Amino acid sequence: MLATSYTLTTTTERSFDDALARVRDALQSEGFGVLCDIDVQATLKAKLDVDREPYVILGACSPPLAHRALEAEPDLGTLLPCNVAVYRNGDRTTISAIDAEQMLSLVGNEALSPVAAQVREKLARVVERAAAESGLDPEGR
Amino acid sequence: MLATSYTLTTTTERSFDDALARVRDALQSEGFGVLCDIDVQATLKAKLDVDREPYVILGACSPPLAHRALEAEPDLGTLLPCNVAVYRNGDRTTISAIDAEQMLSLVGNEALSPVAAQVREKLARVVERAAAESGLDPEGR
Repeated sequence: MLATSYTLTTTTERSFDDALARVRDALQSEGFGVLCDIDVQATLKAKLDVDREPYVILGACSPPLAHRALEAEPDLGTLLPCNVAVYRNGDRTTISAIDAEQMLSLVGNEALSPVAAQVREKLARVVERAAAESGLDPEGR
Repeated sequence: MLATSYTLTTTTERSFDDALARVRDALQSEGFGVLCDIDVQATLKAKLDVDREPYVILGACSPPLAHRALEAEPDLGTLLPCNVAVYRNGDRTTISAIDAEQMLSLVGNEALSPVAAQVREKLARVVERAAAESGLDPEGR
């Protein structure tokens, strides 16, 4: 997994549909609900008649963490939920989650640091687990 | 309107419902579709049985700008759509849009600068117009 300036990203040989289903499962295992589910390919086709490869954005929210974060920083809704993008990229599928620590560094509110660290850790597991070679991750979960 | 480290924010004496309806209208006038519509108050009540004041997150997307941005930066889906949060705050309503230039500064991709500037300008107009005292903005639009 690669940490860029704002994402936690990996690629896999899994098909787009398989990777997307595994991301959904992994989000659920980590306690995230999906509050937002955007089919970018379909939206751009409908609005602009543009053809592009499959691309979906899932907006993931852990209610207890979101609640804590909004108590500390009311405007934080402008940066929620935390997204995982899944898209086809030639003969591979990319899975890319927002790096919550990098994102929340914009805010400059120290009270968010523990929440950001927890979300980052959870989303890192989502990305790793969804892309893993076997059906089970090393801990057999 | 106040520019924080990551938002363009204002407050108004308008009711929550009125402000939210005006934000929706203003987004449409600026060419944004709403791809994501999250009732934070209802979600936290359902998931955590927590009572809080009305809070809605609208995920706004301008298809031509999103298409340009994703061509330049495929992982950008992790930061899309651009949110406007509307929430009740005592006896006032806050309207807060993400500052697209600040947000995209995380990415460090110069090709995004013109798109970020355009989105920032549009969302600033949305915030100003939705909160304006009269039904019409100074240009009478």
